[in-house]
Amino acid sequence: MGKFIVIEGLEGAGKSTAIQQVMDVLANNGIANITATREPGGTPLAEQMRTLVKEGHPDEPLTDMAELLLLYAARSQLVENVIKPALAKGDWVVGDRHDMSSQAYQGGGRGFDRDVMMRLRDTVLGDFRPDFTIYMDIDPVLGLERARGRGELDRIEQMNIDFFHRARARFLELSENDPSVVIIDASQSLEKVTQDIQAALTQWLEQQ
Amino acid sequence: MGKFIVIEGLEGAGKSTAIQQVMDVLANNGIANITATREPGGTPLAEQMRTLVKEGHPDEPLTDMAELLLLYAARSQLVENVIKPALAKGDWVVGDRHDMSSQAYQGGGRGFDRDVMMRLRDTVLGDFRPDFTIYMDIDPVLGLERARGRGELDRIEQMNIDFFHRARARFLELSENDPSVVIIDASQSLEKVTQDIQAALTQWLEQQ
Repeated sequence: MGKFIVIEGLEGAGKSTAIQQVMDVLANNGIANITATREPGGTPLAEQMRTLVKEGHPDEPLTDMAELLLLYAARSQLVENVIKPALAKGDWVVGDRHDMSSQAYQGGGRGFDRDVMMRLRDTVLGDFRPDFTIYMDIDPVLGLERARGRGELDRIEQMNIDFFHRARARFLELSENDPSVVIIDASQSLEKVTQDIQAALTQWLEQQ
Repeated sequence: MGKFIVIEGLEGAGKSTAIQQVMDVLANNGIANITATREPGGTPLAEQMRTLVKEGHPDEPLTDMAELLLLYAARSQLVENVIKPALAKGDWVVGDRHDMSSQAYQGGGRGFDRDVMMRLRDTVLGDFRPDFTIYMDIDPVLGLERARGRGELDRIEQMNIDFFHRARARFLELSENDPSVVIIDASQSLEKVTQDIQAALTQWLEQQ
């Protein structure tokens, strides 16, 4: 069985760079077969669901509930059709976001009830969980400033700043209470962030 | 406030004809503003979700869980953006299928746990329910024979006959335990079915 490593964090936290560093560390440790995924999306059908969530719909608002259910429908497709089969044949999987993003954005940000969020997770995923998660923590003011530099913001990235403060608070709370999650201070210099990610991942790999 | 009337039943039970009869009876009773809906679908976004559920996907199977979540995402869109606003302005709504179809096909047919189905319904719909439901009961062997006469069957209509027997059993169970549902024997002659629908609806209207 391979391992499932997830990178989580707000927009502008440097997830893409972190993913590349994780790939490099894994390669340096002789792990050759790595499947990269992104959420929402990562399969043809899940990408169609991602489009429904990410695009603005001027003529018909997407309800918060439909957004939540589409995200979990996409996650079901990705987990069953890509992640589990990859792990089963011994590949490692590196995920750009997974369930913690829904807990943070829809649970923390949109304000869905904690019980609803936990039950939905358990109903859709059973006891499937990442083996290791790197949460890139950043103040949303700084993160969105960085993200804006990349170009136009999508429907969710256009939410007001309080939404992202609530999402960050939930990311932090979940990370602090889960021993399989390491928190990286993403506001540091790129050099220091790189060093922290490499150290955390290397230490975890040694325990496997 | 308007009222929400739903027609439920297996493929080939004669739902379309029943809907037309319901419309006629309502018009004859002076109810002028009627919104017709169909599920899954009924809004631009919900129709996109319907397409994902109904189309075959040769390259990537749609998981039963993703199907279930898409159906509820579509229902959330329809209820919040069409049905509730119509009822609020005093229109009546006549629905071609609603939640009972999910309970029957996904709960009975696919075999999702009853608690999962009830919790999902309550999470998505709260206490929103139809005011009156006409369940058109038919043996699936006869129903599918009729449906086949109409042309090609979609992804769900191609399920094997046991699936439809389980769905019918759940339809019947739910109908028998809910005083807001009337069961019509759809295997009778068109004349007798019409008579039964008109009698049941007229009786219900008199009680309003």
